[in-house]
Amino acid sequence: MGVKVCKFGGTSMADAAAIENVAKIILSDNSRRYVVVSAPGKRNKEDIKITDLLYECNREAVENGDCSKSFSKIKTRYIEIANDLKSDVDIESILEETEKEINRLKSSDFAASRGEYLNAIIMAAKLNFKFIDTAEIILFDQNGNFDSESTNALVGEKLKSSDYAVLPGFYGKDRNGNIKTFSRGGSDITGAIIARAVNAELYENWTDVSGFLACDPRIVENPRQIAVLSYKELRELSYMGASVLHSESIFPVRKGKIPINIKNTFKPEEKGTMILPSEMYHKSGNVVTGIAGKKDFTVINIEKSLMNNELGFARRVLSVLEQYNISFEHMPSGIDTLSLVIETATLQNGMLETILEGIKKEVSPTYLYVTENIALIATVGHGMTSSVGTAGKLFSALASENINVKLIDQGSSELNIIVGVDNSDYEKCVRAIYKAFK
Amino acid sequence: MGVKVCKFGGTSMADAAAIENVAKIILSDNSRRYVVVSAPGKRNKEDIKITDLLYECNREAVENGDCSKSFSKIKTRYIEIANDLKSDVDIESILEETEKEINRLKSSDFAASRGEYLNAIIMAAKLNFKFIDTAEIILFDQNGNFDSESTNALVGEKLKSSDYAVLPGFYGKDRNGNIKTFSRGGSDITGAIIARAVNAELYENWTDVSGFLACDPRIVENPRQIAVLSYKELRELSYMGASVLHSESIFPVRKGKIPINIKNTFKPEEKGTMILPSEMYHKSGNVVTGIAGKKDFTVINIEKSLMNNELGFARRVLSVLEQYNISFEHMPSGIDTLSLVIETATLQNGMLETILEGIKKEVSPTYLYVTENIALIATVGHGMTSSVGTAGKLFSALASENINVKLIDQGSSELNIIVGVDNSDYEKCVRAIYKAFK
Repeated sequence: MGVKVCKFGGTSMADAAAIENVAKIILSDNSRRYVVVSAPGKRNKEDIKITDLLYECNREAVENGDCSKSFSKIKTRYIEIANDLKSDVDIESILEETEKEINRLKSSDFAASRGEYLNAIIMAAKLNFKFIDTAEIILFDQNGNFDSESTNALVGEKLKSSDYAVLPGFYGKDRNGNIKTFSRGGSDITGAIIARAVNAELYENWTDVSGFLACDPRIVENPRQIAVLSYKELRELSYMGASVLHSESIFPVRKGKIPINIKNTFKPEEKGTMILPSEMYHKSGNVVTGIAGKKDFTVINIEKSLMNNELGFARRVLSVLEQYNISFEHMPSGIDTLSLVIETATLQNGMLETILEGIKKEVSPTYLYVTENIALIATVGHGMTSSVGTAGKLFSALASENINVKLIDQGSSELNIIVGVDNSDYEKCVRAIYKAFK
Repeated sequence: MGVKVCKFGGTSMADAAAIENVAKIILSDNSRRYVVVSAPGKRNKEDIKITDLLYECNREAVENGDCSKSFSKIKTRYIEIANDLKSDVDIESILEETEKEINRLKSSDFAASRGEYLNAIIMAAKLNFKFIDTAEIILFDQNGNFDSESTNALVGEKLKSSDYAVLPGFYGKDRNGNIKTFSRGGSDITGAIIARAVNAELYENWTDVSGFLACDPRIVENPRQIAVLSYKELRELSYMGASVLHSESIFPVRKGKIPINIKNTFKPEEKGTMILPSEMYHKSGNVVTGIAGKKDFTVINIEKSLMNNELGFARRVLSVLEQYNISFEHMPSGIDTLSLVIETATLQNGMLETILEGIKKEVSPTYLYVTENIALIATVGHGMTSSVGTAGKLFSALASENINVKLIDQGSSELNIIVGVDNSDYEKCVRAIYKAFK
């Protein structure tokens, strides 16, 4: 029988009732052997996530050496959960120890990791599974980057001796023995790492929605749900803002060619979204699988006569960005023109001016000007661009809504067309594309 | 009264009758003070251009030290022209001297330049204008690049003392005193240089067509003629293959903000195409000014997970191209994908393989593959991309013709949309776009 690795998100683990529900799901299928949990999320709109409270604790520890103000709220939540679950975990002692360590270490990563840590201990007891701390098996290298191959070997080895286990998501340990977290939402990555290491037949990622939607439901009412996605489509949609799954969680499972099933903890009977490696993937009926986008890009426009004859022109422009550690998203070009599309957030505090100065020095452009407040929208679907008429449909839809297309980029991926529009046209643009390909 | 600089192309100067006609045009307007001439072109389809014969002469001179075989044909043409014009130029002596020099110098640039040289002498005598050899006034620097500012000063100075002059196009002199030519069609550049230096009110470029057509007449029957073009539109159309005017001739006149008028020597009453600096340019009725394109590009497609997180990824890819002196035309990108669009002609003799090897070493891509036989088509028009619906119309037109769009690039120029299609779809694509915007 194949092994399933299940990851449960914060809303699925927000209180005792939710945890009871999760336990029922896990125990209903005994191939669900490895469980990765997030920290308790929000129980209602006004609630604060445990992880946010923990970051606050660390700030207090750094400033006053005492995090008790925020930690008291954390204590209350966990004690309530443990009591409601009639847990035999000595949660109060563990909490006391945790508070001391937060005050002592003053490490943001350590503090943040404790939400998952505590939740995993409670969950392991509830399920009568073994608790295995991911600090012992998920490794980061000397540069603070996740060390995928060492981790894979170590996790595989360690889990051999445990048929059933609960593991905290979100963190591991670096070479100096310090706790190090992934970026926010990183429990998705932990689950994917475990799934790869145990060569799971399926990685179930349980959350509070029934999978991926074809576009943002805050923009389009009741968008179509996506039944099947390829890894690549997922990667493109995630990168461009679809936020069900952490965009980096794809890499471990891709290496192991393991399907991911996004499931709804509160509607476990629904099929959710299945994410498949290309070997298993067959294109479904829709030309466009999904639409995702992000606002707030800045476009630096460079014009120079005979630019194309100047060998290394673009390379020199890009070297300026690199010098200041700035990434670019796209580089559309015309004759004698080159545009750099950059996340506006990375150009704050005079960085834009510094970059412009650098470009002036490096390539002496004839004109150099900036367009701000650009939103990028990716329309994604396998074989989409090789399907005749996709671009026509897309741009006709934008035209009929009077949307001015600022830039277009369609490269080799045959998987997406990216358009740039004014921030103010973003929602209208997503709606128009969705409607055109419904 | 303003000064006009006139350049006459090869077909306009192909024989005595044509030259008589040109003389009439020049003398009909006494503001036509500086005349730049090409070498005699073809008199009929089977004819050989003088310049081609001169390159052949140089080959003979290099191989046998004697170019008389091909030079005899040149002699016949010029003697015929001089006789028919009843010219008092001692053309036979000049030809004899020229033949000796070709044999002695064995310089391809020198040989090629003699067509314009001889024609200018004959034309100056015909008009009773002064002959001024451009070898004395158009300068190239130590790297063989045109030295625009030194030339501009020198031409301005030298022409002050000549109210009326004929100058040979196509060439100048380098720092070592050797004749150096521009690329083929370079008499257009000479004319533009003279126009700038004398601060002409107009640069008339006389050729055998009545100006620019909205697209290639070999593809679309009787395409619309373009009445007014901006410098920028001209540059984009020329770069992408519209061949009425040498693409580099724009730079000198742009500096001087001098309008260019493309005129037909054989229909001098027609208005031709007026090319204006942006200060003088007002958009006419057509959204799309023109369509131009080129076949035979190769696309190198690079895929790598998390490429966008890898600072300097694109810069390193481009450094490989630079190392081998290869220019790229466009670099469309998706998420985790990057494509390089390169002229196929520059990737011959194993260069493609060398580049692929270099990219592999430099950035270790996950996938690396090549798409060949791609044609690029630029649809050009001022303000086109800010005109709502242009992209929709364009791509709908391609869809209705079942054309598969391989890549799209629309950057900041607001002046063009570039699409990539299979070579085999090239003509169909141009026709479809022309029809859509007729």
